[in-house]
Amino acid sequence: MSKTRLNIAMIGSGFIGKVHSNAFRQVSHFFDTPYEVRCQVICGRDRVKLEMAASRWGWSEVETDWQKIITRSDIDAVDIAVPNSLHSAIAIAAAEAGKIVLCEKPLASSLAEAETMAKAAQRTANMVWFNFRRVPAVVFAKQLIRDGRIGKMFHYRALYLNQSGNDPGKANTWRYKRSEAGMGAAGDLLSHSIDLALYLNGSITELSAMTHTFAPGRDVDDATLFMARFANGSIGAFEASRYGVGCQNRNTFELNGSKGMLSFSLDEMNQLDFFDATEPANLQGRRSIAVTGLEHPYGKNFWKPGHVLGYEHPFIATLGDFLHSIAQQEPFHANFEDALAVQRVLHAVEQSSSAGGWVSVDGNSA
Amino acid sequence: MSKTRLNIAMIGSGFIGKVHSNAFRQVSHFFDTPYEVRCQVICGRDRVKLEMAASRWGWSEVETDWQKIITRSDIDAVDIAVPNSLHSAIAIAAAEAGKIVLCEKPLASSLAEAETMAKAAQRTANMVWFNFRRVPAVVFAKQLIRDGRIGKMFHYRALYLNQSGNDPGKANTWRYKRSEAGMGAAGDLLSHSIDLALYLNGSITELSAMTHTFAPGRDVDDATLFMARFANGSIGAFEASRYGVGCQNRNTFELNGSKGMLSFSLDEMNQLDFFDATEPANLQGRRSIAVTGLEHPYGKNFWKPGHVLGYEHPFIATLGDFLHSIAQQEPFHANFEDALAVQRVLHAVEQSSSAGGWVSVDGNSA
Amino acid sequence: MSKTRLNIAMIGSGFIGKVHSNAFRQVSHFFDTPYEVRCQVICGRDRVKLEMAASRWGWSEVETDWQKIITRSDIDAVDIAVPNSLHSAIAIAAAEAGKIVLCEKPLASSLAEAETMAKAAQRTANMVWFNFRRVPAVVFAKQLIRDGRIGKMFHYRALYLNQSGNDPGKANTWRYKRSEAGMGAAGDLLSHSIDLALYLNGSITELSAMTHTFAPGRDVDDATLFMARFANGSIGAFEASRYGVGCQNRNTFELNGSKGMLSFSLDEMNQLDFFDATEPANLQGRRSIAVTGLEHPYGKNFWKPGHVLGYEHPFIATLGDFLHSIAQQEPFHANFEDALAVQRVLHAVEQSSSAGGWVSVDGNSA
Amino acid sequence: MSKTRLNIAMIGSGFIGKVHSNAFRQVSHFFDTPYEVRCQVICGRDRVKLEMAASRWGWSEVETDWQKIITRSDIDAVDIAVPNSLHSAIAIAAAEAGKIVLCEKPLASSLAEAETMAKAAQRTANMVWFNFRRVPAVVFAKQLIRDGRIGKMFHYRALYLNQSGNDPGKANTWRYKRSEAGMGAAGDLLSHSIDLALYLNGSITELSAMTHTFAPGRDVDDATLFMARFANGSIGAFEASRYGVGCQNRNTFELNGSKGMLSFSLDEMNQLDFFDATEPANLQGRRSIAVTGLEHPYGKNFWKPGHVLGYEHPFIATLGDFLHSIAQQEPFHANFEDALAVQRVLHAVEQSSSAGGWVSVDGNSA
Repeated sequence: MSKTRLNIAMIGSGFIGKVHSNAFRQVSHFFDTPYEVRCQVICGRDRVKLEMAASRWGWSEVETDWQKIITRSDIDAVDIAVPNSLHSAIAIAAAEAGKIVLCEKPLASSLAEAETMAKAAQRTANMVWFNFRRVPAVVFAKQLIRDGRIGKMFHYRALYLNQSGNDPGKANTWRYKRSEAGMGAAGDLLSHSIDLALYLNGSITELSAMTHTFAPGRDVDDATLFMARFANGSIGAFEASRYGVGCQNRNTFELNGSKGMLSFSLDEMNQLDFFDATEPANLQGRRSIAVTGLEHPYGKNFWKPGHVLGYEHPFIATLGDFLHSIAQQEPFHANFEDALAVQRVLHAVEQSSSAGGWVSVDGNSA
Repeated sequence: MSKTRLNIAMIGSGFIGKVHSNAFRQVSHFFDTPYEVRCQVICGRDRVKLEMAASRWGWSEVETDWQKIITRSDIDAVDIAVPNSLHSAIAIAAAEAGKIVLCEKPLASSLAEAETMAKAAQRTANMVWFNFRRVPAVVFAKQLIRDGRIGKMFHYRALYLNQSGNDPGKANTWRYKRSEAGMGAAGDLLSHSIDLALYLNGSITELSAMTHTFAPGRDVDDATLFMARFANGSIGAFEASRYGVGCQNRNTFELNGSKGMLSFSLDEMNQLDFFDATEPANLQGRRSIAVTGLEHPYGKNFWKPGHVLGYEHPFIATLGDFLHSIAQQEPFHANFEDALAVQRVLHAVEQSSSAGGWVSVDGNSA
Repeated sequence: MSKTRLNIAMIGSGFIGKVHSNAFRQVSHFFDTPYEVRCQVICGRDRVKLEMAASRWGWSEVETDWQKIITRSDIDAVDIAVPNSLHSAIAIAAAEAGKIVLCEKPLASSLAEAETMAKAAQRTANMVWFNFRRVPAVVFAKQLIRDGRIGKMFHYRALYLNQSGNDPGKANTWRYKRSEAGMGAAGDLLSHSIDLALYLNGSITELSAMTHTFAPGRDVDDATLFMARFANGSIGAFEASRYGVGCQNRNTFELNGSKGMLSFSLDEMNQLDFFDATEPANLQGRRSIAVTGLEHPYGKNFWKPGHVLGYEHPFIATLGDFLHSIAQQEPFHANFEDALAVQRVLHAVEQSSSAGGWVSVDGNSA
Repeated sequence: MSKTRLNIAMIGSGFIGKVHSNAFRQVSHFFDTPYEVRCQVICGRDRVKLEMAASRWGWSEVETDWQKIITRSDIDAVDIAVPNSLHSAIAIAAAEAGKIVLCEKPLASSLAEAETMAKAAQRTANMVWFNFRRVPAVVFAKQLIRDGRIGKMFHYRALYLNQSGNDPGKANTWRYKRSEAGMGAAGDLLSHSIDLALYLNGSITELSAMTHTFAPGRDVDDATLFMARFANGSIGAFEASRYGVGCQNRNTFELNGSKGMLSFSLDEMNQLDFFDATEPANLQGRRSIAVTGLEHPYGKNFWKPGHVLGYEHPFIATLGDFLHSIAQQEPFHANFEDALAVQRVLHAVEQSSSAGGWVSVDGNSA
C-alpha cells in the first residue's frame, strides 16, 4: 500500500528548525502514518546556512524567498520556524493558499496578529508546536485529572526558569528584542506554562501580573509573574524568568486537588510525581511514576519500559498525532485557536502588569 | 561557678507549649548559658491539662490566671504560647511589669496590636519564636548571601503548604477563626515565609496579593499568594496554603542571584542546596550541602557531622542565642520589631487582596 | 501516683555518652513510663571531663572506678558507653550483680566475649543500643514486611559509608585500633547493617566476605564487604567503609520482593520509600512516605505530622520501649542475644575474609 | 564534496535492531561523517517481520540467509543484532570476509567463543555496542577521573537491576535460556556494569562471585553478585538482577576516591553527581551536574544546554565515533578486545560462583 506524499516546506533554519527537521525525519519510524513525509524545501535568508542544513537533514531544495513557496502547488504543508514577528504574514499567506500550516510558539507577537491568524487558519489544517503537551508525563497527568484522580482542583503552580538573560554573550538574539519577539520571557517561556495550564486545568478567568526587566536598556521582560483565578475555582501562580540562575531549562507544574497532587519537572521529563490522598494515611506519599511503560502515553511508539525519552520525542509525537488527525479529519490540539487562547492570557498579563491590578482574560478590567 | 536562676512562666499548654517546654529543658544541654533556666509555672485555662503538662515537662506549678503571673516578683520571663488574639494583652502587661518576654509568632492578630506591642516591648528583652531563622541551613544561607556568594539578587520565591484545611476533622481549631487567629494561612504559614524573606533578602517595598477561602463559611484565608518587589531590586513570589494536598509541612525558599542559587526545603532541613555560577561551566551543578558539619551554624552545639537535627532543634538554638544575648546585652533577632515588620507585610497583603492592586508595605497605595 | 525511681549509672563520657544522657533526660517527656529515671552517677577516667558532663547533663555524681558502681546497692541500671574491648568485663560484672544492663553496640570485640556476655545477661533485664531499629521508617518497614506487602523476598542490600578513615586527623581514636575496637568498619558500621538485616529479613545462613585496609599500618579493616544467603531464600549484599568519601553517615538498606521494594537512607531518616508492585502497572512508582504521621511508629510520641525527627530520637524511643518492657516484664529487642547474633555474623565475616570462601554463620565452612 | 557510501547489512530485527536502525538513520544528522551510511539489507528469519522493519526504517532489501550477505561484495559492514549464541559464527565469517563488524553485547556466550572472535576481528574494523560508554555523563566521569579530580581510588560499586525475571509473561524469551543467551542477568546486565568498570576504573585482578536463580527450572542466573579487587588498589561490589522488583532499568555506578565521589544512575542519565572533597569543608556537597552543556561530551552534537537526551542517543554517538575512527584509522573502543576483557571477567564470575571462592580474572585460582 503506497502512502500519500506530503511535501513539506520549512521556513527557518535556526535551532528550532533543526528540531522540526528531526521530527519530519523520525515521525514515520515511530508512528504509523498514511503519509510519506518529504522534506522538500528549506527556506531562509542565508543560503550558506540553508545549504548546510539541507545537506545534513536531507531537504531537497533551498529557497530564500518564502513567498515563492506559498505559490508552489507541489508544497502541501508550510512549517514556520522563524522569529515571532514573522509568523503572522507567513501563516496567513500559507493558510490562504490552502496549505497545511504548522507554526512555532508563541503564535504571534501580539493578540491582534494572533486573532487574524486564527481566523485565517480556519480554512486549513493547522497546529502550533506546543511540544510539551506531548511529553508522556503531561498526557498522563491529563488522563489522571480527567479520570478524577486529583479531585476538585485547588492550586496550580508553574515555573519556567532559565538563565539565558544573565549571560551577556547569549542575550543578544532576536529573542531579546521587542520588534522581533514581541515579548521576552513571557512569550518564550511563560507561553509554554500557560498552554499547559489551559490544557490541564481549563481556562483562566482573571489574573494579576508583573513584569520586570533586569538588564538596562532591554525592551522586553526578563521575568514575568502572575496570580490567576481559573474557571474551575482553583487559583494559580506562574513565574517565568531568564534570570533563574542555576536553572537551564526548568519547566515545572504542580496541582493540588481534593484527592491528590501532581508534580512535573522537565528536568526529569520521564517521570510524573503523583500523591494519592485517597490511600490509607500511613501509606500516602509522593510517588515517582516512570512514564515509560507500555500502558503510558506513547509507550508503544518509542523504546520500552525504563528506556527514557529526550527533548525531541514530544516534537515527533506532536507531528505523529497531527498527521493522524489530518488523515482522519479529526480535531487536533494545540491548534491556532488554542494558541490564540494562550495569547489572550499573555495579553492580559501585559495589560495587568502595566495597569497594576486584576484584569479579566478577555481584556476587561476584572 | 553558680548560674543565675531564670524563672520562666509559660502561658499556654498546646502543641507549641510542648515545643517550648522542650527548649527550656534542653537549652543548657547544648548551649553554654549563664542562666539556670527553671520551668517555674505553666499557665492556662484547663487545670487537668496543665497538671499533665507540668508533670511531664517538670513545671513546678500550674496557674489558671495569667495576670497573677505578671505580678509575681519571682518570675523573670514570660513565654506566650496561646492563640494569636491573646498575645497582645499578655505581652504588654509582661513588658510593662519588666519581664523578659518571649512570644509565639505571628506577633499579633492585627498591625495595630503589633505596633502597640513593639512599643511596649522596648523596655525589656524580647523575642519572637520565628524558629526557622535558626535552622542551620537557613543561617548558612544567610552567611553565603552576606559573603556575596549569590551576587546581586534577582529572584526570591517561597512556598509554605500544608493540607490541614482540606481535613474537616482538623480544620475546626482556633486557627480557623478570625476572632482568635486574625488570619488563616497568612498568619500561620505565610508569616514564616515573610520573616525568612526579610531576614535573607531585606525589606519588601511593595506587593500585590490575593487571598482565597475554599471552605464555605470560613472567615479566614485558606490560601494567600503575593508578588513582591524588594528594596534590593529583586522580585519575589510567595504562596501559602492549607489546601496544598500532598504537602504536610512544605516550607521552601529559593533565591537566584547573579552568582548563584540557593534552595531550601524544610522537608530536608539538614541540607542546603547551592548552585555556584562562578564555577567552570562544565562543573556547575546544584549541590546538596549537609549542613551538619563542625563549620556549619550550630555544628558544635548538637551532634556531629552527618547526624541530623529535627524539628525542635531550631527552637533550642533560638532560646540558646536569646539567653546569650540577654547575658551579653547584645541585640537579638527576631525580636518584636522584626515581628512587627512581618506584620506590616501581612497588613499590606490584606490591603492589597481586598483592594486588588499594588500596595506599598508602609500601607499607602504604591 | 508516684513513680518508681530508677537510678542510672553511665560508664563513659564520650560522644555516645552524650547521646545516652540525652535519652535519659528526654525519655519521660515523650514516653509514658512508670519509672522516674535518675541520672545518678557518670563514671570514666578523666575527672575533669566527667565533671563537665555531669554539670551539663545533670548527673548527680562522678566516679572514676567502675567497679565501685557495680557494688552500690542504690544503682539499678548500668549503661555501658565505653570502647568495645571494655564492654565485656563491665557487662558481666553488672549482670552478675543483678543490675539492669544497657550496652552500646557492637556488643563485644570478639564472638567469645559476646557469648559469655549473653550468658551472663540471662539473669537480668538487658538491651543493646542498636538505635536504628527504632527509626520510625525502619519500624514501619518491618510492619510492611510482616504484613506481606513486599511478598517473597529476593534481595537485600545495605551500605554503611562514612569518610572518617580518609581523614588522618580523625582516624587516630580507639576506633582504629584492634586492641580497643576489635574490628574497624565492620564493628562500627557493618554491625548496624547486620542488625537491621536480621531484624527485617531474618537470619543469614552463609556468607562470603572481604575486608580491606587502605591505610598503611592500621590493624583494623577500613572496609568490609560481604555477599550472603538468608534463611528465607533471599540473597544479600553488604558494604561498610570508612573510605566512602562523599558520605558522612550514609546508612541505607533496600529490599526487593515479589510484591514490591523498600528503600531507606539515614540521610532522609524521616521517610521510607515504597514501591508497590501490586498497583496497576501505569500507576506503579516509588513513593516517599513521610513517616511522621500519627499512624506511624512513634507518631504519637514526638511532634506532629510533617515535623521531622533527628538523630537522637531513636535512642529515646529505644529507652522508652526498654523501660516499658521492664515494667511489663515483656521481651525486649535488641537484647544481648540479638547482639550475639550480629556478632556471629561478624565472626563469620572475619573467618571468610581470611579464608577466602563461603562460611556458614555458625562458623563451619559452608 | 561527495561522501563515501557505506552499505550496511544488519542481522536481527528485534528490539535492539530497531535501536541500531535508528542509529544508522540518525548518525549523519548529529555527527560529521565522511560516509553516506546506507541501510542496505536487513536480515533475519521471519520475512514478514523483516519487511515491516524494512518499510519502517528504510532498509532497501530483506534477506533470510545471513551467509548470503557475507559473500556480497556490495556490503561494507555487518551489524549483528541477534541472540548471543549466534554472534560468533556471523562475526567470524564477516571478519574473514573483510567486512567491518559491529556486534551487540555481550560479545559471546562463552569465553572460548569470544577469544576466537577477537582473534578473527583483528583483521578488520570492529566494535561492540557497549552503548553506555557514550552516555555524556559517563564520558564526563571518565574525564574527571583522568584529570585526577577523584584522586586515588578506593571504591567502585555498580548495580544493574530490572524486574523482568519476576514477570512470567516476559521471562520466556531467548534471554532466559542458556543455549541461546549463555548467561542470564550476568550476560544481559552485568556485562554492561563490567564494561563501564573496566573503562572507568581499569582492570579487575580477582573476584569472588555468587549467582542465584529464583525461578524453578530456569537454567540461567537470575541474579549475580561479585566482590572485586582492581589493579589500581580499589575494591568493588557488583550486583545484577532480573528480580530487582521496583526497578525497570536501574543501572548505577559510584566511585569514592581520596578527592571525591562520582555517582551515576541511568534513570537520570543526563546528570552526573560529583562530590568534590577538595572544596572548603562547609561547602562540600554532592552536586548534580546537568551534562548537557556545550562543554560536555557530545554537547555540540545534539540539542542545547538543558535539553535532555534519551536512550537512543548514546547509540548514535557510538556509531558517530566509530565511523570517525574508521575514516581516521584511529583506534575505537569498545572493540572486540574490550568486549573480550568483559568476557574474561564474566568467565571468572562463573568459575568463582561454582567453586565458591576467589578467582583471578585470567582464570587461575587467586
